[in-house]
Amino acid sequence: MPQPKVRLALFGSGRIGQVHAANIAAHPNVDLVMIADPFIDGARDLADRTNGRAVEDPAEVFAEPDLDGVVIASPTPTHVDLMSRAAAHGLAVLCEKPIDLDIDTVLECRERISSHSVPVMLGFNRRFDPHFASIQAQVEAGAIGTLEQLLITSRDPAPAPREYIAASGGIFRDMTIHDLDMARFFIPDIVEVSAMGANVYSDDIRELNDFDSATITLRGSKGELVTITNSRHCAFGYDQRLEAFGTDGMLSAGNVAKTVVRRYDASGTEEAPPYLPFFLERYAQAYRTELDAFVHCIRTGDPCSPSFDDGVAALILANAAAESATTGRTVAITS
Amino acid sequence: MPQPKVRLALFGSGRIGQVHAANIAAHPNVDLVMIADPFIDGARDLADRTNGRAVEDPAEVFAEPDLDGVVIASPTPTHVDLMSRAAAHGLAVLCEKPIDLDIDTVLECRERISSHSVPVMLGFNRRFDPHFASIQAQVEAGAIGTLEQLLITSRDPAPAPREYIAASGGIFRDMTIHDLDMARFFIPDIVEVSAMGANVYSDDIRELNDFDSATITLRGSKGELVTITNSRHCAFGYDQRLEAFGTDGMLSAGNVAKTVVRRYDASGTEEAPPYLPFFLERYAQAYRTELDAFVHCIRTGDPCSPSFDDGVAALILANAAAESATTGRTVAITS
Amino acid sequence: MPQPKVRLALFGSGRIGQVHAANIAAHPNVDLVMIADPFIDGARDLADRTNGRAVEDPAEVFAEPDLDGVVIASPTPTHVDLMSRAAAHGLAVLCEKPIDLDIDTVLECRERISSHSVPVMLGFNRRFDPHFASIQAQVEAGAIGTLEQLLITSRDPAPAPREYIAASGGIFRDMTIHDLDMARFFIPDIVEVSAMGANVYSDDIRELNDFDSATITLRGSKGELVTITNSRHCAFGYDQRLEAFGTDGMLSAGNVAKTVVRRYDASGTEEAPPYLPFFLERYAQAYRTELDAFVHCIRTGDPCSPSFDDGVAALILANAAAESATTGRTVAITS
Amino acid sequence: MPQPKVRLALFGSGRIGQVHAANIAAHPNVDLVMIADPFIDGARDLADRTNGRAVEDPAEVFAEPDLDGVVIASPTPTHVDLMSRAAAHGLAVLCEKPIDLDIDTVLECRERISSHSVPVMLGFNRRFDPHFASIQAQVEAGAIGTLEQLLITSRDPAPAPREYIAASGGIFRDMTIHDLDMARFFIPDIVEVSAMGANVYSDDIRELNDFDSATITLRGSKGELVTITNSRHCAFGYDQRLEAFGTDGMLSAGNVAKTVVRRYDASGTEEAPPYLPFFLERYAQAYRTELDAFVHCIRTGDPCSPSFDDGVAALILANAAAESATTGRTVAITS
Repeated sequence: MPQPKVRLALFGSGRIGQVHAANIAAHPNVDLVMIADPFIDGARDLADRTNGRAVEDPAEVFAEPDLDGVVIASPTPTHVDLMSRAAAHGLAVLCEKPIDLDIDTVLECRERISSHSVPVMLGFNRRFDPHFASIQAQVEAGAIGTLEQLLITSRDPAPAPREYIAASGGIFRDMTIHDLDMARFFIPDIVEVSAMGANVYSDDIRELNDFDSATITLRGSKGELVTITNSRHCAFGYDQRLEAFGTDGMLSAGNVAKTVVRRYDASGTEEAPPYLPFFLERYAQAYRTELDAFVHCIRTGDPCSPSFDDGVAALILANAAAESATTGRTVAITS
Repeated sequence: MPQPKVRLALFGSGRIGQVHAANIAAHPNVDLVMIADPFIDGARDLADRTNGRAVEDPAEVFAEPDLDGVVIASPTPTHVDLMSRAAAHGLAVLCEKPIDLDIDTVLECRERISSHSVPVMLGFNRRFDPHFASIQAQVEAGAIGTLEQLLITSRDPAPAPREYIAASGGIFRDMTIHDLDMARFFIPDIVEVSAMGANVYSDDIRELNDFDSATITLRGSKGELVTITNSRHCAFGYDQRLEAFGTDGMLSAGNVAKTVVRRYDASGTEEAPPYLPFFLERYAQAYRTELDAFVHCIRTGDPCSPSFDDGVAALILANAAAESATTGRTVAITS
Repeated sequence: MPQPKVRLALFGSGRIGQVHAANIAAHPNVDLVMIADPFIDGARDLADRTNGRAVEDPAEVFAEPDLDGVVIASPTPTHVDLMSRAAAHGLAVLCEKPIDLDIDTVLECRERISSHSVPVMLGFNRRFDPHFASIQAQVEAGAIGTLEQLLITSRDPAPAPREYIAASGGIFRDMTIHDLDMARFFIPDIVEVSAMGANVYSDDIRELNDFDSATITLRGSKGELVTITNSRHCAFGYDQRLEAFGTDGMLSAGNVAKTVVRRYDASGTEEAPPYLPFFLERYAQAYRTELDAFVHCIRTGDPCSPSFDDGVAALILANAAAESATTGRTVAITS
Repeated sequence: MPQPKVRLALFGSGRIGQVHAANIAAHPNVDLVMIADPFIDGARDLADRTNGRAVEDPAEVFAEPDLDGVVIASPTPTHVDLMSRAAAHGLAVLCEKPIDLDIDTVLECRERISSHSVPVMLGFNRRFDPHFASIQAQVEAGAIGTLEQLLITSRDPAPAPREYIAASGGIFRDMTIHDLDMARFFIPDIVEVSAMGANVYSDDIRELNDFDSATITLRGSKGELVTITNSRHCAFGYDQRLEAFGTDGMLSAGNVAKTVVRRYDASGTEEAPPYLPFFLERYAQAYRTELDAFVHCIRTGDPCSPSFDDGVAALILANAAAESATTGRTVAITS
């Protein structure tokens, strides 16, 4: 006999909200009950396409009976409030990163929700990317012996709008944080952070006192070295790669193109097509698998991964990177 | 205002039937109304998972009001009858290949259905594979100048069961026919066929007077040369590749692996994972796009491609290949 | 104590002659004693660069005492005469392909030289290409189980001049013959040949009653199928590839570029540089290794491979291919 | 009329000395006059193979008339003395890195030789690697716009013997120094250095107070970020890669295998052979091109590159890296 469907509400009808809405709507075991957004037109649009109900006020979500959980894809400043209320109502939470840009606010939130034993999952979707997840599983299984070095390359195709950057919390908290979580996916216990930021092409970003490029080095508690290379732009698209180097070998994941077609002509050979343009395409499968994992946690009560604490840890590392980039000193992480 | 959903019935609940059922069920604009199979348990299983209704007798399908079309995924000997009856009832048809193993039967069927102006699409799903389709579109757009040579490699991971092979019509009509259609996707007008079959590993297939391996050469009306390489087995999985060579360059599509992960160790480097195992995985996207195309034809009345006549043409080429492999002579195709 | 150097004379100071001269001059164990060419200026040029002595008349070569062998890189019509005289003088012979375009002349030559037990090696240099040789050695060692299919792609970057083509003996005897020998490197015993030629781009070649493109299928005595794809032009350079497919797997060799550099930009990714332009570059190492093998045979008396008989066999296959392309019939090879 | 040959003497008959000896002996325009080594048997062995004369005492080299230059491949502690004496004798110098492990000694040496205007080239051979050199030339020519990030991966296949490590000056001065020079090949003006060293697998190296792994970050004067990843071991061979990322795209050079053969079987696909095992194989062409460049400088008087000052600069960066790895602070480089 089939299980009853998991009933979810969604906060936010923006770019990420739309991804979640589509995935929930297509999921055979989940019902998208409600979409809440003060920008009600966005919510209605989405509701039309997914059989959900559009509401303006989050309170309507929390008043809904028989809801199992919420997906929080609204703007960052709303995360802590919505997460806290959801937890208080006994609802499972899948919250987009970051929890908040301020570590104290995040820690208070943790305090508040810890009394409610609801599943809380952080939206570090890249852990569910089939390529990176395959490497992580193989490393975990000992396929390359002891992990010694991890290299993460992560470049956005083009900078977000100036207003976005201005409110983003800076490259480390906004962009690197994904890579920091990826580092922790392989090496949960990071003990040192060193970072260098640079301004090599964007006057806008410089004026905002942010970096357009950065290199971050981490040390794991067993001596592992992690290198993260970031840029806010990339002429050949979204550059998302990873190499795990161990005593017995290396596993790497290159970029993903739309097709495996290669072109050969007088100017060059074996040319692959442009890569998938940005995260919506590159991590489309990751978002679907993330939803599966969330549904699994709701049904089984298994602990969520990535957890709230993974969100905390990534923010602490991002803050350390920002500090190191300013002071020129390696920052020790105390757990 | 959204259009009403296209209402389809499905014949056959076997391996391919299940693919179609899942795709139809997941399609936002299509309803799977009925699944017909004399093996009613299979139909019921499928119906349970897809909201369709299971029926034993095809007559129930033809009695159903407001049906838009049928997908025929039942055994080959039933194709002509079901297609003819569907056309007579004004239903659009998407029929798995082959129409029939006997060319006279196929031509009679064509005669019969031609009076009914219903959309008929042949299930040469590989035309919808994103990799091959991208090459075909680029070639069509002149990206490599004039097409001169086409190389198709097509190897199954392992032979079908002996009973399947025995009833298959032989390697050319059963397996090569897909590659012959792929050749015609690029070069519709084929004028000569030459083939060599071989028995290099399977006693079973030899005993059935069939080949386990084959090489087929085609000539297009503009002098293009096409080479098809077939084997009924392949140690490294499902081998599906294509190269289009023209005056200005070449486009190729290699195989597709589950991930882009590469492994490096003392025994070798840059090792990719095994390829997607067989057609259900390799052509999963192609089946979905094929369904989209069928729905589009039903809604717009646009001509179907691949058409019934494409099915006829591929069978004629397969018969010519079989004849050439027996006589050692090149067979001319008269259109 | 080091062995005395092997003393060689060279016939022909053209393109291939220059390759051999440079390799002999650079070889630590070989002396280039003489370079013979009726076009004496060419011989002198080469002699200046290599310490050899330039002579006009072949007779001077055969009068030279203490010579160990000759390398014949003069025009094809001189091969049989020079080879016969060299053998009569007890000189080892490395002769560029083809021995002659006429099979009867070749067979008479065989008769004549067989009484002299001198080492005779045919210049099928591709057998010494490190990539193809590695595959052949692995196949021989059972690395892919039983060899079932062999695919050879061989395209020249651009057609030779009209006069060359006119005297070449046609695509099968001039160009395909290398690929036929490559087929025999893996599968010495070929029993059937089928070929299709085409004229798709060169009016010059058409007027000469030759083909500019061809596909050749061979059957080995154990049922192996070989496919050769030829073109007299190739927009992306010299296309020389090989795939060996067996019961347990496949080994392939792609093309070779000057560097392993890859380019990524907005128009495409992972683009490799153009391939090595033609045989002088692509088979530079093969020519050197061929010379090593010839020197080894001279010193040890080990049988040469490829041998005179390999030259005969390749010509027989080329003739069969030409016949098949004309008649449309598979030609049986009787050994 | 050909120019007279360049006459060189070689100091040192060890591993690198043998490479230089073989290249000089094979060079059409160079004579290897003498090989000096107090370990006279090594010098004699080499002399036998190359027509040079073996001597024990360096003084014999400096007494030789008509010498054009020397190649210094003797142990590091002899470099400064030999280089100074050679310069004083008006001999051109190609000296293996490092000049010396002590920066003061190096600077004194610079003082001493600067009065003699002889060509001095430092043996940073990787600048002559065809793959890296091609990228550098393309970057210089603007092929990727403005250079923003440079990633260098450099891992030895296995640690040198304990005694070698003990005398090596540590990973930064011994191993990273090559990568630091490579960084300067692209970005001559480095202004900041940050480094993290680690001990993840070798107890030997730990006991010697050295690191077995390291990550180094550099900042160029225009804000460019350079990342160097080092390990003293690598299960899959010698790992030497480079990526140059700019505003308009990226150029990368992967590793080099002995052949382009790929293997496909049930366990994996597209597997390349092991990479060239170590620097003698990987940089064989680089050593030859380096010699060409040295000969060119001797003949033309063109300034050498890499120069003595490049050797100084690389040592300064290596010292800064060592300091940063100890203090956890970014070190500023003042030029």
